[in-house]
Amino acid sequence: MGLGVLAGRAALADPLLSWNEGPTKQAIVEFVRTVTDISSLNYVPPEQRTATFDNDGTLWCEQPLYFQGFFMFDRIKALAPQHPEWKEKQPFKAVLEDDMKALQAAGEKGLMEIFMTTHAGMTTEEFEKIVKDWLTTSKHPRFNRPYTDLVYQPMLELLAYLREDGFKTYIVSGGGVEFMRPWTEKVYGIPPEQVVGSSIKLKFDIRDGKPVLTRLPDIDFVDDGPGKPVGIQKFIGRRPIAAFGNSDGDLQMLQWTAAGEGARFMLLVHHTDAEREWAYDRQSPIGRLDKALDEAQRQGWTVVDMKKDWSQVFPF
Amino acid sequence: MGLGVLAGRAALADPLLSWNEGPTKQAIVEFVRTVTDISSLNYVPPEQRTATFDNDGTLWCEQPLYFQGFFMFDRIKALAPQHPEWKEKQPFKAVLEDDMKALQAAGEKGLMEIFMTTHAGMTTEEFEKIVKDWLTTSKHPRFNRPYTDLVYQPMLELLAYLREDGFKTYIVSGGGVEFMRPWTEKVYGIPPEQVVGSSIKLKFDIRDGKPVLTRLPDIDFVDDGPGKPVGIQKFIGRRPIAAFGNSDGDLQMLQWTAAGEGARFMLLVHHTDAEREWAYDRQSPIGRLDKALDEAQRQGWTVVDMKKDWSQVFPF
Repeated sequence: MGLGVLAGRAALADPLLSWNEGPTKQAIVEFVRTVTDISSLNYVPPEQRTATFDNDGTLWCEQPLYFQGFFMFDRIKALAPQHPEWKEKQPFKAVLEDDMKALQAAGEKGLMEIFMTTHAGMTTEEFEKIVKDWLTTSKHPRFNRPYTDLVYQPMLELLAYLREDGFKTYIVSGGGVEFMRPWTEKVYGIPPEQVVGSSIKLKFDIRDGKPVLTRLPDIDFVDDGPGKPVGIQKFIGRRPIAAFGNSDGDLQMLQWTAAGEGARFMLLVHHTDAEREWAYDRQSPIGRLDKALDEAQRQGWTVVDMKKDWSQVFPF
Repeated sequence: MGLGVLAGRAALADPLLSWNEGPTKQAIVEFVRTVTDISSLNYVPPEQRTATFDNDGTLWCEQPLYFQGFFMFDRIKALAPQHPEWKEKQPFKAVLEDDMKALQAAGEKGLMEIFMTTHAGMTTEEFEKIVKDWLTTSKHPRFNRPYTDLVYQPMLELLAYLREDGFKTYIVSGGGVEFMRPWTEKVYGIPPEQVVGSSIKLKFDIRDGKPVLTRLPDIDFVDDGPGKPVGIQKFIGRRPIAAFGNSDGDLQMLQWTAAGEGARFMLLVHHTDAEREWAYDRQSPIGRLDKALDEAQRQGWTVVDMKKDWSQVFPF
């Protein structure tokens, strides 16, 4: 067996194959080594190895619009035949005509009306089916692929690597929890009970002798910014030892993680690759990375330079 | 090796040793057998083996008062030296003087004032310490033992038995989630992230440069009755295949569990043992078991007759 074969094997065995060699990859590997090495002062027992991941822009794309936004607009179009009045009624008219200017004019109130129309009023089981059906029939406008293809290969490897080392991996996202749960297990290996997200209220009823949970048009919890540490405490009840994000909406989650005792790992994905994905940060209306980037520099958190650090962006 | 030794071994090996032989024990064992037998039509893959347990009256005692009530009153007494005005101010005066009549006169509003005084205003870390300290210093009035001794030995065995068979065991309780999390792992083997309960709102702040979560005097979620299936969906996102309760507050959780597809197991603990524990059901102000008992009889759910089915009640 020659050296070439051995090198080939080593490469195959690298669990972080899509991460280029360099300080970013090294920081990840070193952190995992130190918390899993029982002789290390930084050793953390497996049940305390909690890692939380933002979703939009951290595990999958968030451009040119949060994918849940695409879902919302597609859903309005799918429902339009049952609502002929929408042809003349804002904000629905704007969505049906792809009129972004009119949509902007409808403001936050208009968006909330579209959101509740597409997310509330059905049972939890009906909504799950709607999300699954949408994922199998819709495609991303730039890449012309199902949205669940647009996940980051290096992050899939990182999730698997952490789990292999005894970590429990969670999503802690501003996105809707019931929008994510139908597919996170298949796509990320993260089961529904490890998904924390924003939510609307639910109501229990017996309908035709059968218990149902109906989704109400009433915001229950916003899992974003300062809501992320709150969501972590509410749903997980443990402080993570590692947290992964990409925007100012993740700042407080990383601060909360950093403030615990013992070894900690905080990472931001910086989108620097307009060619393979997108390049955006301080000025972006979606996924703005400004204050969190400053804080990362001050605190020495790990910042992924997507262009430099990732040899591959998507699994395809 | 004689037969006596073999019999001794079999007894030692019984994971449900404190359950007397009979239809109740048989129903539990048969359910677990059928969902874990890969050749069974009722086979359920491990990741879907979700079991939810009420806490008060199902895993530990709830008489003569929910233990969180004892905590609340003890806490008022502990805080009294810092509040000399409480000596003359209701509802605090009633608590300090153990004046149950005056306390009842203060009504729900009075109880809520006591609840928020003892449960809100501090950080999550401070509250965790308060609960832990209380558990090490306080004793149950009848049994004169720490409250965490008053857990049901047969239920501890059942929790371990289910986990051994690949189940994920959850608490779904009307009690405060942060009142339970500090001790459920040690006492039940249930980690904080598998505890669902009632909660008050939290607020993220940076205090003296350190991030904190402060507990606000504002109800966030009531995990009782119809709130239990809601809590299950919010926090777990999967329908349980087995659910365990003891009162009308568990009825909807059991209905929700029963309405799923495939093999299901619903169990109620009926407190029938005034000598070793308590006997109460339809008329009890605490842990009333009335509608749920009727439903159990109609649906053929399993009902534990504590006196008959449990050879031992407490671990001591």
